[in-house]
Amino acid sequence: MKKLDLSLYVISGQHLAQGRELLAVMEAALVGGATVIQLREKNLSGRELVAAGLALKELAHRYGATFIVNDRVDIALAVDADGVHLGQDDLPVTMARQIMGPDKIIGLSTHSWEQALAASKLPVDYIGVGPVFPTSSKPDAEKPVGLSLVQRVARELSVPFVAIGGINAGNIQQVLAAGARNVAVISAVVAAPDVTAAARELKNFVAGGRKA
Amino acid sequence: MKKLDLSLYVISGQHLAQGRELLAVMEAALVGGATVIQLREKNLSGRELVAAGLALKELAHRYGATFIVNDRVDIALAVDADGVHLGQDDLPVTMARQIMGPDKIIGLSTHSWEQALAASKLPVDYIGVGPVFPTSSKPDAEKPVGLSLVQRVARELSVPFVAIGGINAGNIQQVLAAGARNVAVISAVVAAPDVTAAARELKNFVAGGRKA
Ligand code: NI
Repeated sequence: MKKLDLSLYVISGQHLAQGRELLAVMEAALVGGATVIQLREKNLSGRELVAAGLALKELAHRYGATFIVNDRVDIALAVDADGVHLGQDDLPVTMARQIMGPDKIIGLSTHSWEQALAASKLPVDYIGVGPVFPTSSKPDAEKPVGLSLVQRVARELSVPFVAIGGINAGNIQQVLAAGARNVAVISAVVAAPDVTAAARELKNFVAGGRKA
Repeated sequence: MKKLDLSLYVISGQHLAQGRELLAVMEAALVGGATVIQLREKNLSGRELVAAGLALKELAHRYGATFIVNDRVDIALAVDADGVHLGQDDLPVTMARQIMGPDKIIGLSTHSWEQALAASKLPVDYIGVGPVFPTSSKPDAEKPVGLSLVQRVARELSVPFVAIGGINAGNIQQVLAAGARNVAVISAVVAAPDVTAAARELKNFVAGGRKA
């Protein structure tokens, strides 16, 4: 079995890191309790992604966290990441599974009930559901799906899911109340003045929500 | 042994195809004698690359040609391409070889004697050498290396190589005279009014150069 604690899933965004080093920001997030970190940098070359991926993997594992590469199955394999996160326009999941084998984690973004339902039948380990709220972290983000999709996925599907999109300390309780047990964030952690404190606050909400 | 005839290596470029369908243009190049076709489209999503790759692979194989994917090892594996072509900033060759196994073709672009020499010691099946002449097909192209690098590589290295960059029917004889046995082209074929005729003319030059 793959060990996979998705509760606080932090996605990198060098452009949001306020000039701080990506590695330092991600380590601060791990200190604050991030359970998954994802390398998602659209402007790096393959070689730069490999270098960043190797460093982030070591970092994640030092904190007992999971390391995921966005989009690029080849980079994930090259750095022996724990898995890959795919979008609807990326390599199809079935092809990624064939290339990566049964043991790597595969996640898939979904932006509607139809996509979530379809994803739940694919060989994925988890799905992303969102964007829940409007977000500026991803310029190419879809229209917000709102809390109703979170509720429906929580109620009707058994695939593990991570709520994503515009989630922060001010609205996370609504997301948890809608049934999410895991949240993914970019700017709420990566762009925070105190990254560790921001991660810890969100983590505490998630842990509290799980007990409730 | 991998069968690999590099003599006329045609790289795709939808933006140069003058509004014609990529598949139709590449088929016309194969009719004209292209021995390798490469999928190199920087603006397609992973899913679109998979679709184009599957179609181009079938097409290439129908003409007994080799099908190579630029840059993306994962796409190459997903569509079971014959191989991948890497740039100096892409996934390192040793990692690509590990992911792809011994049987897939790996090519590497080189832009200097130092890079060509280093590449010749890596697990590559061929290298690209160029740009020989100024070119507008690749906006990110390096400074032209000229015929002298072609000469030196032909004389001193045993790795198969493809001369690339600004080569057309007007200057190909200089490239062959410098020792190249294989040429790669984008616009000289893809942007030609008669793609098949343009490919055939270049192919005849290469075949003639090989006999000379
Ligand atoms: Ni290059």
